[in-house]
Amino acid sequence: MIEVSTALNLIRPSYIREILSAAKSPNIISLAGGLPSPELIPTTLLSKALRSISEEPAHSLSELFQYGETAGYSPLLATLEEMYKIPQGIHSMITNGSQQGLDLIARAFINKGDHIVVEAPSYLGALQVFGLAQANIKSVEQNESGPDLDQLENLFALQKVTLFYAVPDFHNPTGVCWSLNTRKQVATLCRQYNVTLIEDAPYRDLRFDGQALPLVSSFCEERSIILRSFSKVAAPGIRLGMVSASESILSPLIKIKQAADLHTAIPLQAALRFVLKDDRFPQHIRNIRDAYQHRYQQFSESLSRLKPYGGEYNKFVWLKLPKINALNAAKDLLQQGIAVVPSTVFYHNNSNSSAALRLNFTHEKINELDKAIAGIEVYLKAKKVWM
Amino acid sequence: MIEVSTALNLIRPSYIREILSAAKSPNIISLAGGLPSPELIPTTLLSKALRSISEEPAHSLSELFQYGETAGYSPLLATLEEMYKIPQGIHSMITNGSQQGLDLIARAFINKGDHIVVEAPSYLGALQVFGLAQANIKSVEQNESGPDLDQLENLFALQKVTLFYAVPDFHNPTGVCWSLNTRKQVATLCRQYNVTLIEDAPYRDLRFDGQALPLVSSFCEERSIILRSFSKVAAPGIRLGMVSASESILSPLIKIKQAADLHTAIPLQAALRFVLKDDRFPQHIRNIRDAYQHRYQQFSESLSRLKPYGGEYNKFVWLKLPKINALNAAKDLLQQGIAVVPSTVFYHNNSNSSAALRLNFTHEKINELDKAIAGIEVYLKAKKVWM
Repeated sequence: MIEVSTALNLIRPSYIREILSAAKSPNIISLAGGLPSPELIPTTLLSKALRSISEEPAHSLSELFQYGETAGYSPLLATLEEMYKIPQGIHSMITNGSQQGLDLIARAFINKGDHIVVEAPSYLGALQVFGLAQANIKSVEQNESGPDLDQLENLFALQKVTLFYAVPDFHNPTGVCWSLNTRKQVATLCRQYNVTLIEDAPYRDLRFDGQALPLVSSFCEERSIILRSFSKVAAPGIRLGMVSASESILSPLIKIKQAADLHTAIPLQAALRFVLKDDRFPQHIRNIRDAYQHRYQQFSESLSRLKPYGGEYNKFVWLKLPKINALNAAKDLLQQGIAVVPSTVFYHNNSNSSAALRLNFTHEKINELDKAIAGIEVYLKAKKVWM
Repeated sequence: MIEVSTALNLIRPSYIREILSAAKSPNIISLAGGLPSPELIPTTLLSKALRSISEEPAHSLSELFQYGETAGYSPLLATLEEMYKIPQGIHSMITNGSQQGLDLIARAFINKGDHIVVEAPSYLGALQVFGLAQANIKSVEQNESGPDLDQLENLFALQKVTLFYAVPDFHNPTGVCWSLNTRKQVATLCRQYNVTLIEDAPYRDLRFDGQALPLVSSFCEERSIILRSFSKVAAPGIRLGMVSASESILSPLIKIKQAADLHTAIPLQAALRFVLKDDRFPQHIRNIRDAYQHRYQQFSESLSRLKPYGGEYNKFVWLKLPKINALNAAKDLLQQGIAVVPSTVFYHNNSNSSAALRLNFTHEKINELDKAIAGIEVYLKAKKVWM
């Protein structure tokens, strides 16, 4: 039988897929996946968008359903460029979710063995694509204001680094937001060492407290790539994201996209445009922010019960539990009907991971979250490592 | 600035993209792209599908717009398995058009330098993805009943070949349909030499004359991958295709798809299912077949004018013009407002290409097709190589 490629063999079996799959059975409380809460998906706006499209005259419909441009549906691109105030000289392309944007970047710019830097911990989907591209992945530790700048400079100085992948706003999985100073310093380092920054920004529009800070990319526009996602502000099922960069960076990405799937489906790009332009869209964003803020506050109260076990946490929620084995804990908890993600999966190299559980509070309702924390408490109590 | 990857540098600049882009200006008659005729896109069925989805209750909508399974929307998969009578033991995955299916296959199974075989000429999009995967591409010549079997066996015997990519029904670009004997012989050779067959079947459902023959894969199920496309039977803008294979082959493809873009957008999968299940869908397929048959007949009459110039043709249409330089002819014709695709782009190695032009008759109306042929005739007459 045919053998799988070396690249595919190198990426680790994804434990998170197993968890997500298990988490679907009705008797599991899932704090595992990053699924938005079903009632916060703007079904009214989406339904209205689909109905409007269905009512278009035949000649417009036959255009929406014809082959389209690889870069995306141009009316949607125009709407987004205005909405995000994309500066002159920066061009954008629509992708199948920001995950595809990441994959295209890896394929366009990484050769086997190239050195790239990620934060530790880091978004699992990014580790997967960089693994597939056979990059030599180095990681920089985080503190409460972003990546450790000395470590980052050492990594950049030690050998040629081509790309630095980061999530500066509401980092997944830790929830850290970079300080203004860190943003400026990282941009300066990228310029100095000729490193291209990949700024992944799926959560920026959902900030529910603290101050909005400029994109890191705004301090090093010419050497950065911004990834945006419409999974959280609109809906994940439409699989739409956007990648923005200078033309010299975007044009190879378009070339890869052309080979990968020609272009992204047009009718849902038209539907997203309807949703974004709807008068009620700003209210929808406020609703999401309010709901998450409220849920987070109540979840925090439940979480405070875990302090006796060394439980420290942060928005997103990244629950540090220094005395446990995170992978075993996640497996044990799953047996008890509680799905969480162990910290190990967010490090490209398990050895430097510090024990934590990622708890997503956006999907389950408050009652269920509370039950889950109670279950985690019972589990930790039984472990007795705190005696 | 950041440099593009070796793989991307290796794929040739796509002249066809230039043509397709030029072909959009209103004063060009385009016989270049494989675009379906706008009036044959089932806008009524698609509009009805979108309206039905827009009327679903909020809880169903929030499921359709939530993250989904990587393999695809299961009700659509079930419909397709029934429709295509997918045999037991063969599993399927929905992709962003069959182009993505090809790309996933290349990424999952090809290491740099692996030997694979394609027909010469071959589908351009396939040559691109195999080029990106840095495969060592060998090609087998075609005769009127499919690939030359002796050549194919020699290629298989000479060195380890992992994959053989073929379009056995209405080959793109030549239009050749493999005979039953060739189908069986190729399957036997694949078994004997342990080669996995990629059977690309986007046009099978649109046959407008001749006899439907079994899939080549039906003679070597366990070592084949079938690609289907819904761009021609439904619409290209929805970007939906399907890849089917035994579990050991499909499961690596699902793993790559997960890293590439998590899954294909759900709402358009639901819309496609509506269209396929609609009572009027079989009539839509008959309409496409009738329209193409009619247009092809009339186009053939125009084409017969080109016989004095050595013009031989075949369905699709692949117009052989042995005495011209195909690339120069295509460029000259574009200047004169006629877009066609030169044969060179369909060969991974230009040197073994024989001069021809691919003329697509599905997009333009009869009058325009006729004008285009008259223009080609004027051009050929002026070349004087036939004197």
